[in-house]
Amino acid sequence: MASSSSAAASQQQHETVPDDHYRVTYEEIHEQISRSARLMRDQFRPDVLVPIMGGGMIPARVLRTFLKVPSEVDSSKKRNIPIQAIGLALYEEVAGTSAESMGREVIRTQWLDEGTFKRSHHAKQPSPSGAGAAGGLLGKNILIVDEVDDTRTTLQYAYQELLADVQKGLAALDPAQRAALPPTRFAIFVVHNKHREGGKKGVLPLMAGQGEGWKLEDQKVGQDGVGEGVWYYSADETGDCWVDYPWETEDILEHNRLATLAKKLGVNTGRPPVKET
Amino acid sequence: MASSSSAAASQQQHETVPDDHYRVTYEEIHEQISRSARLMRDQFRPDVLVPIMGGGMIPARVLRTFLKVPSEVDSSKKRNIPIQAIGLALYEEVAGTSAESMGREVIRTQWLDEGTFKRSHHAKQPSPSGAGAAGGLLGKNILIVDEVDDTRTTLQYAYQELLADVQKGLAALDPAQRAALPPTRFAIFVVHNKHREGGKKGVLPLMAGQGEGWKLEDQKVGQDGVGEGVWYYSADETGDCWVDYPWETEDILEHNRLATLAKKLGVNTGRPPVKET
Repeated sequence: MASSSSAAASQQQHETVPDDHYRVTYEEIHEQISRSARLMRDQFRPDVLVPIMGGGMIPARVLRTFLKVPSEVDSSKKRNIPIQAIGLALYEEVAGTSAESMGREVIRTQWLDEGTFKRSHHAKQPSPSGAGAAGGLLGKNILIVDEVDDTRTTLQYAYQELLADVQKGLAALDPAQRAALPPTRFAIFVVHNKHREGGKKGVLPLMAGQGEGWKLEDQKVGQDGVGEGVWYYSADETGDCWVDYPWETEDILEHNRLATLAKKLGVNTGRPPVKET
Repeated sequence: MASSSSAAASQQQHETVPDDHYRVTYEEIHEQISRSARLMRDQFRPDVLVPIMGGGMIPARVLRTFLKVPSEVDSSKKRNIPIQAIGLALYEEVAGTSAESMGREVIRTQWLDEGTFKRSHHAKQPSPSGAGAAGGLLGKNILIVDEVDDTRTTLQYAYQELLADVQKGLAALDPAQRAALPPTRFAIFVVHNKHREGGKKGVLPLMAGQGEGWKLEDQKVGQDGVGEGVWYYSADETGDCWVDYPWETEDILEHNRLATLAKKLGVNTGRPPVKET
């Protein structure tokens, strides 16, 4: 009995987490995405998902489950909304980079597939010809997806470059084609928006006044046919901490154990600091 | 006490699963992918992942965690291997399809991004120019990733079309460029290979003799510079049953509860039928 209770005490002593990382489980992220999807279905109504690879791949795939729309072939069924992936990396993540350019610049590793997407049957109507790489995106509600909004550098790049492609595509249409299209709108979804102590490096023209009661129609649309500003959704907010995603861990059972333990101990909650008023 | 024990009995009675679906959890899939990755690291040594969207997105993102390679910038660090996503769908999954063509034909919704990938710094050396859409894939070990090998229709399409692009790209090189490249090899990874009672509709030239002891160098390479046949990896085998993936469920906690319950009851194990000898 003595040795057993001493083992229990020892067990108790060792119940600490090894670092200050905020660990999130697959299940937590799945549920968070479900809640965000409900809001986005009511508000932004995405037509196409643009995950930024690699981080956006899992959030986008889960989101798709919650963003199905009625099939146009058989209205008793639902269909998935299309996905058009883009690959972005900071220089540091790829090989063959000089030391001084690391971490400063975003590079493309995959971009919109000119041709295929706009020819695919995902389009409600065949896309206008001559619209370039963004052909399949014109007149759509485009949801850019990533796992975390940290420095905002990658998200700014993705938004600006997609916007430029869309504007170029719209400008290449003749006026009748352009008039026939609904507005093209942009939104961003991230699992976590990280409150950085030093602020964000990247800048996004967040849509002014976006709130719970907002509807798509409340967004102003510019002369170019593009909604002004970008809708912004995050499933959760975190402080300036290290977030460990389940898909990045080599030992998922240990990851989950530490996530549960941290909750029990009330540490590494990921919460942003309470604002002083 | 009587009502409490009757409630317990009633609880016991209701402990049944609602259908014969095989439910897999995120954690199980993560661990299965980890084990497969170990084998692939030893054997096929993938240079680039080509997930088939949407099913391949989550498996590919998890795989990437286990397939990191030493950084060429700083050998004390590891870097991710590149991802080049493709989008494929059976007609039935997309809108605007005539009833008679549904489910029979594979269509592309996204394909290789001509230009971006081969210009990116992922390439060990800059890719030869004039190599077309597959430029970034030439001389690489290409791992095609999907969630399930069911009818094999989509996998056959993906393999054949990527192979054709690679062969075209290699043929466009001058002999010196071609000679400088290592062989281009293909492998397929799926989370589940489903044993269909009616057999597979699609056909893949599975590499003869691929076994535990096999090395990359054991694969024959054709005159065209492409490894003969396709390596094949599945993290698990299932019978001809309905597989419910966690990312496809709207209620992840209920999904996990039913997965645990099925295990407890010893039903819906997903096991293929035992072969009669």
